[in-house]
Order: sequence, then C-alpha cells, then structure tokens
Amino acid sequence: MTKLRLRISISLDGYVAGPEQSVNEPLGVGGERLHDWVVPLRVWRSMHGKEGGEVNANSAVAEESMANIGATIMGRNMFGGDPGPWRTEHPWNGWWGNQPPFHHPVFVLTHHARAPLMLSDTTFTFVTSGIQAALEQARRAARGKDVALAGGAKACAQYLAAGLVDEMELHQVPILLGSGARLFDGAGNDLHGLTLTRTVAGPGVTHLKFERPVR
Amino acid sequence: MTKLRLRISISLDGYVAGPEQSVNEPLGVGGERLHDWVVPLRVWRSMHGKEGGEVNANSAVAEESMANIGATIMGRNMFGGDPGPWRTEHPWNGWWGNQPPFHHPVFVLTHHARAPLMLSDTTFTFVTSGIQAALEQARRAARGKDVALAGGAKACAQYLAAGLVDEMELHQVPILLGSGARLFDGAGNDLHGLTLTRTVAGPGVTHLKFERPVR
Repeated sequence: MTKLRLRISISLDGYVAGPEQSVNEPLGVGGERLHDWVVPLRVWRSMHGKEGGEVNANSAVAEESMANIGATIMGRNMFGGDPGPWRTEHPWNGWWGNQPPFHHPVFVLTHHARAPLMLSDTTFTFVTSGIQAALEQARRAARGKDVALAGGAKACAQYLAAGLVDEMELHQVPILLGSGARLFDGAGNDLHGLTLTRTVAGPGVTHLKFERPVR
Repeated sequence: MTKLRLRISISLDGYVAGPEQSVNEPLGVGGERLHDWVVPLRVWRSMHGKEGGEVNANSAVAEESMANIGATIMGRNMFGGDPGPWRTEHPWNGWWGNQPPFHHPVFVLTHHARAPLMLSDTTFTFVTSGIQAALEQARRAARGKDVALAGGAKACAQYLAAGLVDEMELHQVPILLGSGARLFDGAGNDLHGLTLTRTVAGPGVTHLKFERPVR
C-alpha cells in the first residue's frame, strides 16, 4: 500500500516557516534555521548534486525520509509565486530552477488551473479538484512507492484534518520563530491514529516519527 | 545560584491547557490528557500522599523535575478563581484543597492585592508588582533551592520573553488539543541561550530539557 508521508522541519513553537515569506525569503524571516540540521549532511548534498558533507546521527533519519518516494504533493504557497491566477507571461516555475531535486511527479494544490510544467525529469501537475483528488493522482503516479507531503502548512493541515496522513516525521528544531506559518493550525484535535513510534535525538534537532496501521 | 526552572506538559501543537478552562475543567477540554504520563507514576502518587504506582522511563525525569524546589511561581489563571478583584466573602483558595501538594512558598502573579493565604504548610503570597519582583521574592524564599515556574501559559511566556528562565523541561505529549492556551504565545523568537541538552523518550511523552549557563 502506498503511504502518504508528511516529513517536515518544525520549530519548538510549531512553525514550519517564519513570518513575511517572499521571493527573497521563501521560508520567511529566520525560517532557513529550520534546515540547518539537514543542509550540511552528505545525503542532502548528494541529493542536490554536491559532493562531501557530514555524516552524523541525523543522516539515517534523513536518508529514510527521502527513500522510497514516488511522488510529491505540495500546496500552492510552497510552490510559490503570487497568489491568484497564474501569469500568462513568465509564469512562476517554482523555486528550484531548471533542475528540480524531485526527479518524480509533483502535484501542486491550487485553485487556478494550469497546464503541466516539465522541468528536466520533474513534471509539476496542477490539481484544482481538492486534496483527495491530488492524493489519488499522486498514488497512481508513485507506481508502488510512497507519496511525500512536502508542505506548506495549510496543505499539511488539510491532509491531517482529513485523516489522510499515514506517517508523519517531525524534525523538531529547538528554536522559537515567534510567528509565521503554523503546521497544526486547522488540523483539529485528532491525530486519527497517528502514534509516536520513534524518537531520535540528533545534533540540533529531535526527530519524532508517527505511524499508524496502513488501512 | 538559585535557578528559575520551567517544567510543563505540552501538546504536540503547543498547548499547555485545552479550550474552555473552568472550575470543573481547570485544564480545559482534553487538557487532562497532558498529564496521563505522570499521574500513574509512583513518584507522583507519593507526592500526593498515595501508595503504589508505576516505575518506568518517565520516573527519573519526574523525580528530577520535582527535586530541589524551594518555591513556586504561578500566574493568576493557574491559581484559578474568577478574573478581576478577589471576592471578599469566600475567596477562591486554589484547586488543591486544605493540603496543597507544594509544601513550600508559592507566589501568585496578580493585578489584585490580597493578603497571604496559609493552607497547611503552603503559604500563597500574591504579588502585584510584576514578574521580576515575584522572582526576587521567590528566590529569597527558596533558601538556596531552585524556583519552579509552574504555569499557566501567560506567566511562562512572560518569563521566557524576559530571558529569566534558566532551565526549561518540556514534557511533550504526542496529541493535538486543537485550541486552548499556547505556551509560546507572546514568548517572542529568542530562547535567550536556552539550549536543548537532553531528550528522553518515555511511555506517552518525550522530555526535552533546555539549559543555559547560570549567570
């Protein structure tokens, strides 16, 4: 069974991005600190075509979280660009340049229709028919592998509230951001069976893995 | 040096009490779930004059968090009673009956003056001159031991924002409460040197200890 897996870095006060997100600061003010634990890792650098890097207690968790992913779902805010209808000239094509690091199909939740966007070996499909439809498309596209739920906060909260998340790994970074986008705003008061099954304390981060029996 | 130590149970979504706190539900709807990890422990039962109880991976953390406390600070909302001036007849005397479990001086932050309240071997002193004054009084009263910051959310956030907390132990319970009182609301975006120094995974809870060099 293809699982929907949410993996995200989160501050101690529950933010997955800082305030004032913009083209220059896609993670908001201070939000890049959420990724300080992963960026120096060899496994991260390798995924982004770079050599070298560290190996530490975070490496195995990072490797596991990146493994066996056949498709990714993200919200419009994570894909980026101005809100509202897509521009007809020079539309926003994401943060990742011409060589996105996904290497598999990506489904973007949006209220505004747009033709699929192909960049290198990644195809972005824009889904206007809701989270359930996006999940069905992503499951098919994943060809037996799992589906990653990448962000942002609102997209994650919608899937959590609907009880559609099969596995959640929170990379909890011991900092306060004070404001920004909160992961659990709108997620309700029910984890729908997601149970803490593993805690790993690594340098600069605590990894909390939640699982439930696949239905 | 007498440390100010914040020890509190907190949900995954950052709440230290559920919504709709009242005399019947002092921890708000669902809030009692935050204490499910500690109430069955032998160390907890012993502190409340009961025999028996469990010993597990949470026991040592609970014992440590209760040890070497010479005074407690709490906010008016945690002490309880209606907001506003104290009633002159039948004033609210706390949640704990005639035998409060503190056994040391307790300082209650309030905007409304009130004479000290003695219940068994616990004296509640009502401090109207602010968090710094309450801390100074509590430090003196602790006679070389540490001062506990017990809650509620607003009192904790004030001390955190002012950089006055020397040690913080979060007992993070893997549940969502959805709404209620958030610990870090108003705490700002700076932990003032508090650094994650220990992670303990116990049954039903993850303990995150933050420390900084005592100044």
